[in-house]
Amino acid sequence: MASSISILEEFNPVFYPESVAVVGASDSPLKGGHLTLLNLMQRFKGKIYPVNSHLPEILGLKAYPSLSAIPGKVDLALIVVPAPSVLPVMKECAQKRVKGVIITTSGFRELGEPGAKLQDEVTAVADEAGIKVIGPNTFGMVNPYAELNAGFGPSFEGLKRGHIAVITQSGGVCALLLDSMIKQNIGVSLAMSLGNRGNIEFSDLIKYLAEEPRTKVIALYLEGIEEPRKLMEAAKQVVNKKPIVAYKVAQESLSQATYSHTGSLAGKYELYRTAFAQAGIIQADNCTELIDIAKALAFQPPPRGNRVAIVTTQGGPGIIAAYVCQNSGLTLANLSSQTKQRLRELIGPLTSCQNPIDVAWAARDVETSEEIIAITMDEEGVDALIINALTHGVGSKFKEAIISLAHKRQLKPLVFFWDSSTEDDPHIIELEENNIPAYPLPDRAAEALSGLVKYGEILSRG
Amino acid sequence: MASSISILEEFNPVFYPESVAVVGASDSPLKGGHLTLLNLMQRFKGKIYPVNSHLPEILGLKAYPSLSAIPGKVDLALIVVPAPSVLPVMKECAQKRVKGVIITTSGFRELGEPGAKLQDEVTAVADEAGIKVIGPNTFGMVNPYAELNAGFGPSFEGLKRGHIAVITQSGGVCALLLDSMIKQNIGVSLAMSLGNRGNIEFSDLIKYLAEEPRTKVIALYLEGIEEPRKLMEAAKQVVNKKPIVAYKVAQESLSQATYSHTGSLAGKYELYRTAFAQAGIIQADNCTELIDIAKALAFQPPPRGNRVAIVTTQGGPGIIAAYVCQNSGLTLANLSSQTKQRLRELIGPLTSCQNPIDVAWAARDVETSEEIIAITMDEEGVDALIINALTHGVGSKFKEAIISLAHKRQLKPLVFFWDSSTEDDPHIIELEENNIPAYPLPDRAAEALSGLVKYGEILSRG
Repeated sequence: MASSISILEEFNPVFYPESVAVVGASDSPLKGGHLTLLNLMQRFKGKIYPVNSHLPEILGLKAYPSLSAIPGKVDLALIVVPAPSVLPVMKECAQKRVKGVIITTSGFRELGEPGAKLQDEVTAVADEAGIKVIGPNTFGMVNPYAELNAGFGPSFEGLKRGHIAVITQSGGVCALLLDSMIKQNIGVSLAMSLGNRGNIEFSDLIKYLAEEPRTKVIALYLEGIEEPRKLMEAAKQVVNKKPIVAYKVAQESLSQATYSHTGSLAGKYELYRTAFAQAGIIQADNCTELIDIAKALAFQPPPRGNRVAIVTTQGGPGIIAAYVCQNSGLTLANLSSQTKQRLRELIGPLTSCQNPIDVAWAARDVETSEEIIAITMDEEGVDALIINALTHGVGSKFKEAIISLAHKRQLKPLVFFWDSSTEDDPHIIELEENNIPAYPLPDRAAEALSGLVKYGEILSRG
Repeated sequence: MASSISILEEFNPVFYPESVAVVGASDSPLKGGHLTLLNLMQRFKGKIYPVNSHLPEILGLKAYPSLSAIPGKVDLALIVVPAPSVLPVMKECAQKRVKGVIITTSGFRELGEPGAKLQDEVTAVADEAGIKVIGPNTFGMVNPYAELNAGFGPSFEGLKRGHIAVITQSGGVCALLLDSMIKQNIGVSLAMSLGNRGNIEFSDLIKYLAEEPRTKVIALYLEGIEEPRKLMEAAKQVVNKKPIVAYKVAQESLSQATYSHTGSLAGKYELYRTAFAQAGIIQADNCTELIDIAKALAFQPPPRGNRVAIVTTQGGPGIIAAYVCQNSGLTLANLSSQTKQRLRELIGPLTSCQNPIDVAWAARDVETSEEIIAITMDEEGVDALIINALTHGVGSKFKEAIISLAHKRQLKPLVFFWDSSTEDDPHIIELEENNIPAYPLPDRAAEALSGLVKYGEILSRG
């Protein structure tokens, strides 16, 4: 009885390997084969095998002259040798029954022919042996749950375990997104750049991540895609289970020759936007939005509609949030006269009880603040909230109120603007431990909420 | 012979006071009159006079029952009493020959009548006595050069002295912009929120800042403006001397009644955008852009044209920068075949010598990196550069190269993308000490450069 292998069983040995070889490990600093070995040794607890035909030892580890000389099994091989040596190494991988490889080496399809031909030959060997190929021309993969930094990129020290998978075309962009997430204390479930996509495509990864239990959100950075239909088909299946947010740049902007034909290029780009929308992929317009929206989706459920109430300790940040809502397809919720009256009693006569609700000095008292937020949340016409608080005196009370409320009752979906002058603000950590995503600017909070609302719309169309 | 008083002489006693009174100083925490006094005492080296009719001492300082009881002169009075008491206090200010006041109290024009009437009465007394009125309904003013935090807002600890003036309508937005600038280590020359604009308008401030030598860039946050023509006229005069960058939100988004008439509102907003463009005001689309563009303008001269070369240590960040250029009115510079050939010799065969120029591993060597940047800069068709480097191994060499080059020769205008996982990155500080503005994301670097290019265009039209 043949049992079909699940996608998790297929990929897990590659993303959660027990043993990793570095083929092309080097003792000379600033070489890829050195940086890769260093990164791996930093945290990985499994077996590490440097492979180098000349050296008996690298960085204190016994080195092997070839893959076949390694005594134990090898789940994952990091291939850091020059392009012409990659094919023979792949043949060795097949013999050694390696499960997956990461080819960081460049000099393949990205150069046109004959690089494309070489890549096809390498991939053919891998396909035949059932080896998963990440790359070529990638910086590698990072899996915080496996304590694995498999690539020649930054050390990614401080990268937290979390629920966002980051999959990019470019290695550099994967690295910069992760560095930005470290800085903002945002956790990651798995991250990699697919580079030239030997035999793993975005569509494959999306299907895997849909099943992978640690991932709640899939964040993509895309340049050109050879087979957009495969991606869109995979996305359509997956988005009902997990949200996908993507930042797609027009690769055409690179080309001098085509650059001047802006009209047709814009048209092509518009086609992409339409296809993404149809597939249910949420679109980000820059790196910041990509991370901000992914974070909202990791912490909060999608709202049932687009009617937003803004509750703010200061007028201006509320106006900014309202302005962004207006430009991002959100609606400012109408409050019933009863709600407005109840708010007026708590807030006093001086500030707005319309939406945005300007709490001002009433925020000085935690209980009053809780009541204000609860009344707003219970208003039937409100689907989601933006809560704004500045960090000083009154604002910190308001933050306490929302956390206290989160312990007492079910909250409607919300995002929090928390103006902080330090990155490792303990308040932000506390908010996010309570699943309340906090943003350092009110416009960013509102844009993030608009991504959350879009996901609700995608789900509701079924 | 009557000598006309210059705008600097007119405003400097208010913005650089020798003595400050807090009228309504309080000993009860979380009250405005307490926070204001605390903020003032934190760093201000001049005389501080708490005024309170009941207490002989507040926070260890002798308190006075009234302004007139203060023995010395008072340059600036911070008025923190309830709205109905503001008029008599203003009359006292007139008697005491106070130069300027900051009225943080709300309950004036923002409430409609009768608040507007009260505000008019207060302002009439001030006008008669030649007193400058910041507010009412403002958080106050911050002047790092005067070590002055004159308001009830955050402490703004760590706010650096610098060359960007930040003037906002809303106090909350001023606070959040400053907190963001603290986090990014960006210096400020003067910051304040004008609130209800008693008798100081945006146009007055702009004219003052044009003459004030520490300010190089004027950053504005605007909601509604009663007399837009005055602002536009002032801007037209000033922008040939100093750049103005503004983030304007449509205040109309606040109003439920008008919110549904999106068409006409959008039209009104478009009128503003056109007027701003005609006045030579650079427009930012969100808080991040406002600060990013102001920073570029504070560090770099405007380029002569919009032809941009992108030099990058990794492909992907270069593609993002190119994409943003394309969408922001910048042109990717054409490189001459001679330039491309010289670059190819230094970079090797594997990566792009088209624009974006993908330096890859050639960045490993500081001298080669310097040469690559210099060749690109010397290309006649290049007006400005975006330099991208990731923080790990190779990137830090590239950063060294640009700093070394900055010591040796005149650079063309440039912005730097430096992927950093910590905020107080010493590399960013080093770059900016060399007047090279560094941004944590490539899209933000490119957007900032587009602001710089726009200023060049504004200057060139005369």
